[in-house]
Amino acid sequence: MNSAAFLTDFHHVATIGATANNGVDRQAATAEDALTREWFAAWVQDAGWELRVDGIGNMFGLLEWVPGAPHIIIGSHLDSQPLGGRFDGAYGVIAALHAARRLDAEVAEGAELPQFNLAVVNWFNEEGGRFAPSIMGSSVYAGLLDREKMLAVGDLQGTTVREALAGIGYLGTAEAPDAAGYAEIHIEQGRILEREGINIGLVDSSWYTQKLDIEVLGEQSHTGATAMADRHDALVAASKIILMVHDVTKDFADEAIVSSVGQLTLEPNSPIVVARRVHLVADLRSGDPDIVKAARAKLLKDIDVLAREHDIKVNVKDFDIRPIRRFPEAGLELADKVAANLGLSARRIQTMAGHDSVAMNTVAPSVMLFIPSVDGVSHCEREFTTDADMVAGVDMLTGIARELVAGALAETPAPSAAALA
Amino acid sequence: MNSAAFLTDFHHVATIGATANNGVDRQAATAEDALTREWFAAWVQDAGWELRVDGIGNMFGLLEWVPGAPHIIIGSHLDSQPLGGRFDGAYGVIAALHAARRLDAEVAEGAELPQFNLAVVNWFNEEGGRFAPSIMGSSVYAGLLDREKMLAVGDLQGTTVREALAGIGYLGTAEAPDAAGYAEIHIEQGRILEREGINIGLVDSSWYTQKLDIEVLGEQSHTGATAMADRHDALVAASKIILMVHDVTKDFADEAIVSSVGQLTLEPNSPIVVARRVHLVADLRSGDPDIVKAARAKLLKDIDVLAREHDIKVNVKDFDIRPIRRFPEAGLELADKVAANLGLSARRIQTMAGHDSVAMNTVAPSVMLFIPSVDGVSHCEREFTTDADMVAGVDMLTGIARELVAGALAETPAPSAAALA
Repeated sequence: MNSAAFLTDFHHVATIGATANNGVDRQAATAEDALTREWFAAWVQDAGWELRVDGIGNMFGLLEWVPGAPHIIIGSHLDSQPLGGRFDGAYGVIAALHAARRLDAEVAEGAELPQFNLAVVNWFNEEGGRFAPSIMGSSVYAGLLDREKMLAVGDLQGTTVREALAGIGYLGTAEAPDAAGYAEIHIEQGRILEREGINIGLVDSSWYTQKLDIEVLGEQSHTGATAMADRHDALVAASKIILMVHDVTKDFADEAIVSSVGQLTLEPNSPIVVARRVHLVADLRSGDPDIVKAARAKLLKDIDVLAREHDIKVNVKDFDIRPIRRFPEAGLELADKVAANLGLSARRIQTMAGHDSVAMNTVAPSVMLFIPSVDGVSHCEREFTTDADMVAGVDMLTGIARELVAGALAETPAPSAAALA
Repeated sequence: MNSAAFLTDFHHVATIGATANNGVDRQAATAEDALTREWFAAWVQDAGWELRVDGIGNMFGLLEWVPGAPHIIIGSHLDSQPLGGRFDGAYGVIAALHAARRLDAEVAEGAELPQFNLAVVNWFNEEGGRFAPSIMGSSVYAGLLDREKMLAVGDLQGTTVREALAGIGYLGTAEAPDAAGYAEIHIEQGRILEREGINIGLVDSSWYTQKLDIEVLGEQSHTGATAMADRHDALVAASKIILMVHDVTKDFADEAIVSSVGQLTLEPNSPIVVARRVHLVADLRSGDPDIVKAARAKLLKDIDVLAREHDIKVNVKDFDIRPIRRFPEAGLELADKVAANLGLSARRIQTMAGHDSVAMNTVAPSVMLFIPSVDGVSHCEREFTTDADMVAGVDMLTGIARELVAGALAETPAPSAAALA
């Protein structure tokens, strides 16, 4: 592979929406997201491939070797968190473009014609920082989320997905290609590969995750003139809930569960008014669904006691429940073989974070690969992976894609969404 | 007095920016604030008085009986908290308009010419919900805040006071009248008058208050993929600070101090990102400055320990420190006499909340009056005072204004800002 060309592209895309501390800020359907989309579109068209944008803003670059055959799709997402890292998502899309170009060259140079065509994808709104839920574009593609409902989702300013996509010119009308298989490569966002000195993580399953939408309803009053005993302060109650969400992890083994509150809005948000309403979102994740369920049950019980103590109403709703998803064993064995042929070390690994591959795996046999993250940090500006690890990952993804278009997983069924829910 | 005309005006103004639950939402320099300003301007002009708007948006209606003489100023503010009550501020402005019209009629009917002229004021941004600090217009008038600095203050959307006032057409250029004295009537926002069945509160002093601007700096990371032990969650630390601010009151006698956090912003505010920064404002108030100082010292110490425990940076800045202000004894004695003549019961009272009169009292001898608040609640939609209590208050304010224009406090010096700071 021409690793210099890949690295040039990678480091160029990192300049789009770049932040002061080497991160990027390219939230879904913003002006910065549009710039990476234009870069992707130009790249695909320069390569001579067909560009398609579907009705939820997913972008596909299609390589047509076998007229009418389904596609193996490879890729990830170019959107980022606010002040996010430059590797998360973008690495997978750029690696896929270069893997596809390499396979395209092999076919042009007379390699055996594959069974399937190939497509490179840039999924819409994987991050979910602006529009919830995350993994939106691939979940709509996979039929796990309803397109019309997602187009109506608003951000904190009230702008809908439909308005935002139309505003940047990426509310498309093209039909997305059928998927005969899917592969994605991503940074690990954890410390395991780095700690063990391993090149490639082969993702065998995703963690069980769920969110809780929590609305705390107190009573608005004057911060100066209202006696402490007469207050029903929604922010005081919400603060206790935030600490409960954090501390519930201590009831379980180390690293068995993670939980947090990352989003909170306060009304009226005036320095001299006791808050009447706080809305927050809690996120619970574990490799064991029973642990998440036990933590949720404890939280609901503790919140109920708290609401009575504070004479406050708290509404809690479950949403975005994602069961454990297992990637096909045949894909893991295939990846083991490809890694060995490339002389790369590999190990099986779980993903705590969600990925587009988790949605795609419900409709097509999917292979999910990790490369090491320095210090295990992500969703922040100091997220980092070395050039050498990135280049090895492009080789790995190229090898997987070559096998997939040749039909290596053609007989492997995709796990259905229903069977795992 | 024509109490029907007063009540008609009061209940009409309550429809401007009215909310679903009988409150109003008229934050400073919004479209709703502009509507009450237009109502005030029209009323003043219909009465045949001179209308002036000064360079910080304060509106004055001037009655000129004695050419060139200074003015006694009476009034309050028409802006409200978000989802605020319809009595706070608006009552005092409308009561002042009617008191002034009554005295104007008395002069027209041949009453002895007073020593001073009279002006009715609608102060800009008493509430401070949109633009901090509160009590902005009267503090600029009194020289306690700098006009240019206040015009540059931004709201959470980045709109400045200058832009907002110019946008609604109320960034004036007129000179404000000189004040020979000041009187204001307001709802109590507490339970004392209601509990004791007393008509009028005579405010003898204000509480000591201060705010703390607190910035919590953690590290942004992925809520799913970051181990609990590796996190520096700014929202978890901020939640502990919010509870510290609430609980510090328990170290002191019941009702000796109130404290709260009413404003908080979170970055990046994404459901799947551990927060990197939380900015919050704490408000501490007591009748005894030493209690606020002791509470502040305890908070700073506890926050320092917390920051080290969480390996997080916390920046704390003091701002908006307001010393205890005493209203002149001569004004209190005058008010006692006026109440007795009207057959109204009265008692001396402290104010926990800030008022425009507290700023005005530093430049002119001031009289601050309260009428009862049902249940003591304010800054919320269910704030309530009866028509009968409001009408009695208009009589009281009229009596005070009649004495002030006649020179009752002409020899009383105003407490200087410096002496009390």
